Formats: sequence, structure tokens, C-alpha cells
Amino acid sequence: MNIILADSYEITDKHIRLTDYRAEHIVKVLQLNTGDMIRFGIINDGRGKAQVTGIRQKFPFFVDLKIEISESLAPVAPIDLVLALPRPIMLKRVLSQVTALGVGTIHLVHANRVEKSFWKASIVAEKNFRPYLLHGLEQAVDTRLPEICLHRRFKPFIEDHFPTIRDRYRTHILADPGGKSSLQLEIDNESGRVLLAVGPEGGWVDYEVQKFREQGFIDCSIGERILKVDTAVIALHSRISLLLES
Amino acid sequence: MNIILADSYEITDKHIRLTDYRAEHIVKVLQLNTGDMIRFGIINDGRGKAQVTGIRQKFPFFVDLKIEISESLAPVAPIDLVLALPRPIMLKRVLSQVTALGVGTIHLVHANRVEKSFWKASIVAEKNFRPYLLHGLEQAVDTRLPEICLHRRFKPFIEDHFPTIRDRYRTHILADPGGKSSLQLEIDNESGRVLLAVGPEGGWVDYEVQKFREQGFIDCSIGERILKVDTAVIALHSRISLLLES
Repeated sequence: MNIILADSYEITDKHIRLTDYRAEHIVKVLQLNTGDMIRFGIINDGRGKAQVTGIRQKFPFFVDLKIEISESLAPVAPIDLVLALPRPIMLKRVLSQVTALGVGTIHLVHANRVEKSFWKASIVAEKNFRPYLLHGLEQAVDTRLPEICLHRRFKPFIEDHFPTIRDRYRTHILADPGGKSSLQLEIDNESGRVLLAVGPEGGWVDYEVQKFREQGFIDCSIGERILKVDTAVIALHSRISLLLES
Repeated sequence: MNIILADSYEITDKHIRLTDYRAEHIVKVLQLNTGDMIRFGIINDGRGKAQVTGIRQKFPFFVDLKIEISESLAPVAPIDLVLALPRPIMLKRVLSQVTALGVGTIHLVHANRVEKSFWKASIVAEKNFRPYLLHGLEQAVDTRLPEICLHRRFKPFIEDHFPTIRDRYRTHILADPGGKSSLQLEIDNESGRVLLAVGPEGGWVDYEVQKFREQGFIDCSIGERILKVDTAVIALHSRISLLLES
């Protein structure tokens, strides 16, 4: 945890009392004392520092902080993600890692090779994404939560929903090991936001690739190696970020 | 498992009988039958296909394969890694993922912020890396095992060992959140192999950064976000790969 995050409604007149995992982390891992400073951010708002003004170092822990916000909320990340719903353990890992890298919105979609049972996992059915997103923000010292949208059927997503968001992006990339184009060619010298679609284990089926193409996605490959979803998402995000920065 | 891998000494006259986790995978997950084809590779040698010539589909499983090698061993990956020894669970994940991405040699080194106990973990003490490397190769359809070198003391590594391998690389990159240079600047238009050094949780200490600099490493940052070791290694590897391909 490289920053302590809190919701604005937890804060009263620049003060907060932490009593949960954040207090425990400050006591046990960071081993702070009264007077010590720590990075602090308000979820979906600014960040800065906080000073420990009171602390109880044995169970039940509490930590009182006095907050000073010095930076406003950072702009939204230039990359959004369409992700074929992975198995729950992989989803948790991907959510944390891609949040740490920076992402605007994550569209979790159904695909032919997504097992139907994945939609019944508690993390998805109960929309219990927040701890994994917070974990990514706390790692990367960010305050902006990604948005998560669920699309339980592929066809309505690509035919009806996607056209309503298409113009938010300059480039629409479909990651596909058989893709004909290179990321470099498609993103070099382009500014604007990028929508990246990453398939399930085993890849998109031909019908899905065709549907993405009809909607203007360009299928790109980053080589012949078959990667796990988490590795592939990070690898693609990193390459796109580098191209957008250049 | 996207390819079945075997050591050359397991093969007799283009035939092999599998009886371990590979046989179980072919029976249970791939559900192959006699006559079916599968991707097959020889560790540190060529790859091609194999045909199932015999199979026992209940415990104890076995699978007989007839092998046809059509491609020779791919060249060594253009990136080697110096990695401050991570905690065992992270090490296992990084070894698999970076092997899937492609890496030549991985130097596991001590650093000030590496806990001494990590060197006593069974995966390190017993040099039990192979299953994690094979896992990466089986994912990425590769046959070339990375080399792993252990350096239990930092100073002898950087002062005595590194000078003997320095000339194998055109570029020496030290990943450092405070780094002054950009990867782009250092690797653009350069050919040749790259050595990438990634620090422990909490980063390299000043003394270590200074030592790397004295040996010709250039400290590069990929932004202000603090990343976990596994995310950072994949992100850096991907960016360097993109720059080497361009």
C-alpha cells in the first residue's frame, strides 16, 4: 500500500479516523507513530499527505489522520479495455494490475469461449470489484477508480452498445494472435484515446473477430507467443502506452 | 499447456511414452484420442507435431506419441534480466511470465531491500526453477529454457561478475522510478541485446543505483506509478520488445 485512500464521506473537516485494514497496515507494516507523514488520497478526487495525530497500536487498531490535499484528480487514463470475462482468480489479478497501470473503463463481455459459470462467480454476480480496484490504486498511488461495465451477451454489446461509445476513441484495437496489423502502425502518430479488446483463453472465435472488424476494430498481433490473459493485457497496455507517449 | 515438451533423453527413435502430468493433461484437458495431432517440442531443441499412437484414459494414464520435428530451436531472446530476488510466490509468477514473454538469462541478485530469508526458500535453495520455466514455455509454445544465475551478494555481482558479461549487451537499462532517461531515447534505433535490471519492492537503494551507473547502466523510468515487481517486469519487457522490433 503506497497511499492511504478514503472516500470523501469518511472525512470530516480534514480529519479521518481509520479503524479497518488501513489502520492495521499503518500500525503493523508501516509502523508509524504520532507526527509521521503518509501519502493520502480521496477516491475519485485529489491526493496529498496526511499526518498521524493519534494512534492505537494494539487490537482494535485505530489511526487518526489530519489531511492536506495538494494535487487535484489526475486526468482519466488514455486506454479503455474490452475484456472477455476471465475466470474469477484471473479477473481479480487483472483488475488490480490494469488499475495499477491506469485504465479508464473496463467492459467485461461474454464471448464464445467464456465459461457461463464465470458470470455466477461472487465477484461478478455481486459486482464485488472494488477491493481489487482499490488494491491497484493503493499500489500505483492513484485515486481514480476505473469504471466496470458488465455485458452478459456479446451481440448486444458489439451491435447496440459499442456504437454509442465508438466516437470516444481514436483507435480501436482487437488483440488477436492471428491479427494482420502491428500496434505500431495503427497507433504511431495518433493522439486520442484507445479502446483495446482482449479475448478469452483460446481466443476470440471467427464470428467475434468478424463482428469487431465490422465495427471498425483493427486486429493486431504482438507476436506468435501465446500469452495468459494477465500477461497479455499488461504487455498490450504497456506497448500502447509507449506508443501514445512517443 | 499449448505445447507438450520433453527432454531429448526421453525420446527413443521419434517415439515417447508420457506417464506424468503431460499424459494427464492430454487425457483430461485436451481429451485426445489415438490418431489426434498435438504440438510437440524438445527442450532446448526443435519443435513440430506429434501424433497420439496409444493412450490409456484412466489412472494410471499413459500417452504414446510419434514425433515429427519441423522447426529448429529459435534464436535466444534479445532481453536478459537482472532481478532483485523477489519473495518466493512472486518469483514463481515472474519466472513463468517472463519465460512466456521470452528471456535469455535471468540473474537473481541480492539487494539491500531483499529479505535474507528469500534466499532460504526451497525454490531458491534447491534451485527448483524448472517447473516454473517449463510452465512459461508450455504457455508460449517455446522450447528454449532461460538460464538462471544466482548472485547472493550484490557487490561481487556488480563489480566482478558484471564486467565479464557487459559486452554481450548493446544497452544496459536500470529500471528506477526516479530514473532520468526514457527507454525510448536509449533503445530507439539501437540493435543488439538489452540487459534490464529491476529492483526489489521499495526499489534499489542509492548505493546500488550508483554502482549500476558506474558500470554503464542508464537509469530509466516508465512513469510515476509504483508497480509490483511482476507488473513492472512485464511492462518493461514489453516496451523494450516494441522498441527493438521497430
